[in-house]
Amino acid sequence: MTTATPVIDIHEYMLGLGRQARAASRRISCAETATKNQALTAIAAAIETAQPRLIEENRNDMEAGAAQGLDAALLDRLELNPARIQAMAEGLREIAALPDPVGEISELRYRPSGIQVGKMRVPLGVIGIIYESRPNVTADAAGLCLKAGNAAILRGGSEAIHSNRAIAVCIQDGLRQAGLPGACVQVVETTDRAAVGELIRMQEYVDVIVPRGGKDLIARISAEAKVPVIKHLHGICHVYIDDRADIDKAIKVAYNAKTHRYGVCNAMETLLVAAGIAERVLPPLAVMYQEKGVELRGCGQTRDILADIKGATLEDWDTEYLAPILSIRIVDDLDQAIDHINIHGSQHTDAIVTEDYSRARRFLREVDSSSVMVNASTRFADGFEYGLGAEIGISTDKLHVRGPVGLEGLTTQKFVVLGDGHIRV
Amino acid sequence: MTTATPVIDIHEYMLGLGRQARAASRRISCAETATKNQALTAIAAAIETAQPRLIEENRNDMEAGAAQGLDAALLDRLELNPARIQAMAEGLREIAALPDPVGEISELRYRPSGIQVGKMRVPLGVIGIIYESRPNVTADAAGLCLKAGNAAILRGGSEAIHSNRAIAVCIQDGLRQAGLPGACVQVVETTDRAAVGELIRMQEYVDVIVPRGGKDLIARISAEAKVPVIKHLHGICHVYIDDRADIDKAIKVAYNAKTHRYGVCNAMETLLVAAGIAERVLPPLAVMYQEKGVELRGCGQTRDILADIKGATLEDWDTEYLAPILSIRIVDDLDQAIDHINIHGSQHTDAIVTEDYSRARRFLREVDSSSVMVNASTRFADGFEYGLGAEIGISTDKLHVRGPVGLEGLTTQKFVVLGDGHIRV
Repeated sequence: MTTATPVIDIHEYMLGLGRQARAASRRISCAETATKNQALTAIAAAIETAQPRLIEENRNDMEAGAAQGLDAALLDRLELNPARIQAMAEGLREIAALPDPVGEISELRYRPSGIQVGKMRVPLGVIGIIYESRPNVTADAAGLCLKAGNAAILRGGSEAIHSNRAIAVCIQDGLRQAGLPGACVQVVETTDRAAVGELIRMQEYVDVIVPRGGKDLIARISAEAKVPVIKHLHGICHVYIDDRADIDKAIKVAYNAKTHRYGVCNAMETLLVAAGIAERVLPPLAVMYQEKGVELRGCGQTRDILADIKGATLEDWDTEYLAPILSIRIVDDLDQAIDHINIHGSQHTDAIVTEDYSRARRFLREVDSSSVMVNASTRFADGFEYGLGAEIGISTDKLHVRGPVGLEGLTTQKFVVLGDGHIRV
Repeated sequence: MTTATPVIDIHEYMLGLGRQARAASRRISCAETATKNQALTAIAAAIETAQPRLIEENRNDMEAGAAQGLDAALLDRLELNPARIQAMAEGLREIAALPDPVGEISELRYRPSGIQVGKMRVPLGVIGIIYESRPNVTADAAGLCLKAGNAAILRGGSEAIHSNRAIAVCIQDGLRQAGLPGACVQVVETTDRAAVGELIRMQEYVDVIVPRGGKDLIARISAEAKVPVIKHLHGICHVYIDDRADIDKAIKVAYNAKTHRYGVCNAMETLLVAAGIAERVLPPLAVMYQEKGVELRGCGQTRDILADIKGATLEDWDTEYLAPILSIRIVDDLDQAIDHINIHGSQHTDAIVTEDYSRARRFLREVDSSSVMVNASTRFADGFEYGLGAEIGISTDKLHVRGPVGLEGLTTQKFVVLGDGHIRV
């Protein structure tokens, strides 16, 4: 078991990482696509080769975690096994295969003055990623930042420090093989929590912070950060079954949105059902949910139909269960459904099930969430499903990016102007 | 002269504006294009009709300003005359004529799962605009926010309070005629500076702050805001004359970038000249600048060519003069020019003059500024010149928007997903 690197002055240490990241970001921002892809595939190969060492270092983390009394779910996230190591390597190769977003010029048009004006997609600069104890995020986040031409400073959970350092060695190896500076990806080598405080305040050296983890982590970082944060706080997602819904589609979508996975931000937490269809749709759905072990909590009207379920309290409408629990409310109509979503939702992902053209159109326009859906499960709100290739998170912010954040969300656009000696008159 | 509305509790007053703005934003976000345009043209007509009253109220501000000892430049900005009132009305009609950005769906594509995924452009929500004593900004900012489907809270400089209130009456009139809630545009009615502090911290009610004014104002707001800020701090813009430049184009562009207007953020502050062309380009340019009354400050090599000019100090490279002063540095080559710009520039607007294809291409990619130009004057960095129709500011931030911010910068995108009962498997 390696010992933690002793860091005397966290402030100076982090500033040093920042300076090196800024310098490296100038290099990586102009790197050729082939060079970045070469680094990504070399990192993937290095991770595969290092499998025995990664598993050994991960065992140190697992043993320390067990000794500290981490619960089974956390230990599961912390674990690296051959399948997960292979998945990390594959993930990097998939990122290499994605089109390079950097340098894309769009909307280049002649203006009446004679100049041509367009937009060029460019990297953000330096990205700080703060995450919990899932070592695979180290490879994943490094790969996405790299492909988008950014330098990255990665701060993973202290429980995964040995695993993360071992992955960092593979990343350095791959960068070197491609002739890119090692400081393109730096893993914070200290487990001192003060490092996070420094990272989120280094405005001069860090352009954006992406926190990945539970909502407590994200809320704390957002409150304290001086650097802009791309965050998603929580997902209280709704499915609204309209009274003009196709019953079969409604049941399929509502069942999938709740039961496909429970601990994910795009799972449905509240089902809204139009009064006019509730008696036909709720009884069969309730049987399915109960067979799957989902606890149902209903409003008064719901309990008139489903007599044996618990009552929902006001608090239920504002709760992200992340568990096999579902609250159900019967609403009068689309207006009441939209009001409920805009008041109680978290602007993450909300869906309507309807065959009515005008209501579908209204739902899409009027629900102010990062993803709005018609006749599809909220579980589709995901970078891979959307064709972004990969995602670094799901943003419920409004500025810059909303919804799943892929490579494009890690870039920005600048204006390019082409003239022939043109001047303002 | 009307007296200031007495506001007892600034905190409660501002929260009240925030709550009303949030409610109004739900309405305006879904308003039809024709309704928004009707409001804009009705406001324009109301402003024209109110011309005598606007001039009278403005006279109160002008007299108070003169009594307070405002300088001539500030008084000039504060003044409303018939031409400026006409320009305000025309500006609103131009905004009405722009395409509505809201609701535009792009990149709607089928995914292998069978769902269609695209992006819909939507308003940001509530925008707080903080500006100095230019009353025309009140109409201008209100119009842009409105067209982009946002509610606006406007806080102008206290010196313009009577003018702003009179314009606010016209805005209310126009909104009412179009059947839109008056709270779509609210002018802060108190001159108490605490109102700004409240506005920039109301995260629940305000989605973004756009400060318009001097860099001190913007720096202070950025430092204290809890709400995200779209800002531009300053413009230290460069023109680099490459040794493969066309001499005539170089002289035209460098002269225009400095002398077309001095007090603007897209004026050139530092001229970089490749050593190989300096002796041919600097003497004729110096004559033109000096005839125009521009003070030149040169590096050592520059003064070997232009013997009679002042020396530039290190501080000059980091100074935004906003005045008829120009610093000149001779550099070895493109690399040194790019280094100078990336170190001393403000990531606003920078131009190269060259006939060399590869160098032009490198400059566009490697200079990390919100606008990068080839053979064109930096003065083109402007929303109207870029075809944005109007601009609310020029962002030197990297997240969300860079460069001139038009209607699109006041919107964001959400994902729309269309299915037919599709579920995740």
